[in-house]
Amino acid sequence: MKALRFDDGLKLVHDADVPRREGEALVQVICAGICNTDLEIVRGYGGFRGTLGHEFVGRVVESPGESIVGQRVVGEINAGCGECILCTKGDPRHCATRTVLGIKGRDGAFAEYLSLPVHNLVNVPDSLNDEAAVFAEPLAAAFNILEQIDILPSSRVVIVGDGKLAQLIVLVMTQTGCDLAVVGKHEKKLVLAQTLGAKSVLADSPSLGSKYLGSFDVAIEASGSPVGLGTALKLVRPRGTVVLKSTHHDSTPLDTSAIVVNELRLIGSRCGRLRQAIDFLTSSRLDPGQLISERLPLDRALLAFEKAADPNTMKVILHIS
Amino acid sequence: MKALRFDDGLKLVHDADVPRREGEALVQVICAGICNTDLEIVRGYGGFRGTLGHEFVGRVVESPGESIVGQRVVGEINAGCGECILCTKGDPRHCATRTVLGIKGRDGAFAEYLSLPVHNLVNVPDSLNDEAAVFAEPLAAAFNILEQIDILPSSRVVIVGDGKLAQLIVLVMTQTGCDLAVVGKHEKKLVLAQTLGAKSVLADSPSLGSKYLGSFDVAIEASGSPVGLGTALKLVRPRGTVVLKSTHHDSTPLDTSAIVVNELRLIGSRCGRLRQAIDFLTSSRLDPGQLISERLPLDRALLAFEKAADPNTMKVILHIS
Repeated sequence: MKALRFDDGLKLVHDADVPRREGEALVQVICAGICNTDLEIVRGYGGFRGTLGHEFVGRVVESPGESIVGQRVVGEINAGCGECILCTKGDPRHCATRTVLGIKGRDGAFAEYLSLPVHNLVNVPDSLNDEAAVFAEPLAAAFNILEQIDILPSSRVVIVGDGKLAQLIVLVMTQTGCDLAVVGKHEKKLVLAQTLGAKSVLADSPSLGSKYLGSFDVAIEASGSPVGLGTALKLVRPRGTVVLKSTHHDSTPLDTSAIVVNELRLIGSRCGRLRQAIDFLTSSRLDPGQLISERLPLDRALLAFEKAADPNTMKVILHIS
Repeated sequence: MKALRFDDGLKLVHDADVPRREGEALVQVICAGICNTDLEIVRGYGGFRGTLGHEFVGRVVESPGESIVGQRVVGEINAGCGECILCTKGDPRHCATRTVLGIKGRDGAFAEYLSLPVHNLVNVPDSLNDEAAVFAEPLAAAFNILEQIDILPSSRVVIVGDGKLAQLIVLVMTQTGCDLAVVGKHEKKLVLAQTLGAKSVLADSPSLGSKYLGSFDVAIEASGSPVGLGTALKLVRPRGTVVLKSTHHDSTPLDTSAIVVNELRLIGSRCGRLRQAIDFLTSSRLDPGQLISERLPLDRALLAFEKAADPNTMKVILHIS
């Protein structure tokens, strides 16, 4: 089968093995989205080698439980050992020996087929189109923030970043009724953030208005840039919370004294639950078109990666089958 | 009066003005302790200029409310505006316009006299000796951790660092009944940590046993070194908590991806409440002698700073009057 693999470099191969794993479902990928984490892996983050991609919608073509064959599905990307205390509680997201689709020890979604455990798969209602379903995984990552911290209608929240993940976080935060601002570098993206529900938008510049510094209860760092954390730390009030969403291939110089003196809380945040995201996408009738910059076939995956790395681009979708 | 001042460099002056502030008490300093923050200020942290020192015990010699003249006292080091919402709630520790004794906008305790608001002062019972009372301020900073996070008897806690603040944190953590380990670089200090109640001690080396990595619920970084945070991040389990106590003059390179992937929580922690610390010191009958390396008069303050900077030294106390 065709697959976009990262080994020494990024390469589209035509003879990859169809990834069959015992006891798992085989899914024919319909389309898949390129995430900042994919770009960071290519830049050296995480040490993954194999087929990239973890945001997808597909159709089950083989399964140990025949009943789901033919279903259109998205998939939780963490596959646990099934035996540790975390897995037996139904949450393999931190299983020590987990594999992660297209990120850790498991070939991913930029291929004609992928394999995942049956219990990772979430059925997609007919009313939700393929491209919208691709947003389920990153949207779940945005909802995960609400699993981790309380956001009240009275909370003053700022999102640092205006890219594709940041925009999904805008959507989630508007559900809380909080007072929401977005700090970003791209005028068009800031306009989109306002369309999606941000009450105010601020241009991220060295002269970022001093009236905003130290004024937010919560700052959510989703810029994908190592400097975003420094901005977030400046924007929250003493004893405020900074949620960290971005992963980088480099270490970040950090003024830890600001964390100590202002007694800030930093919380790392990764994967969420797909069921909630699918329900939200279905009920909100979100038009994903406004979040998509490019649609390309798998054959043009290398060009798609180039486009995804352009700071002015939003989501790039690979149409695979 | 005599005072140890930091301007271009560290200098003992003999003609400093006695620091009288309207509406405040004047305290004759009996003795004062050198803290890692004092050393960091001299290395460039925080930009403070003036008389250093914030751990002290003294005697009130002048006060707007006459009744406390003659009392032996320690003092909360944050002096707020008295009018903002934080100050009116009785907690000036994060007042935006606060001064901080010997750290920010207010001359400190390495002098014959200091000035503080009357409500910052906490009476010291006769049964507590001067040297023990000097530990009230850093001990309160250790107790502050319990204001910020829950530590249960079932919690696995590790303290990164074996210096003077780390040892006080050992004392506080033993009150919770938690399973407590200390990671440090100094054999004698690790032995002291065991004497004070740590159940296990680990030598901090590149070969720090892999069985400890990712195994603690809480890691408390109190090493005073920029590399301590990296060690703490490695020692906590996924979704674990890292408490940051150390302030540095430099920024620290940090692998923020580890925070995101393991969904760690970092919490900065600064000043605590002195009343609780004084009560603990009084009831525990702690022998502070085991935490003190040197006692020197204010006239030899420069030598005292040299000694305090030696990694093998514990607390250095200046005897002033």
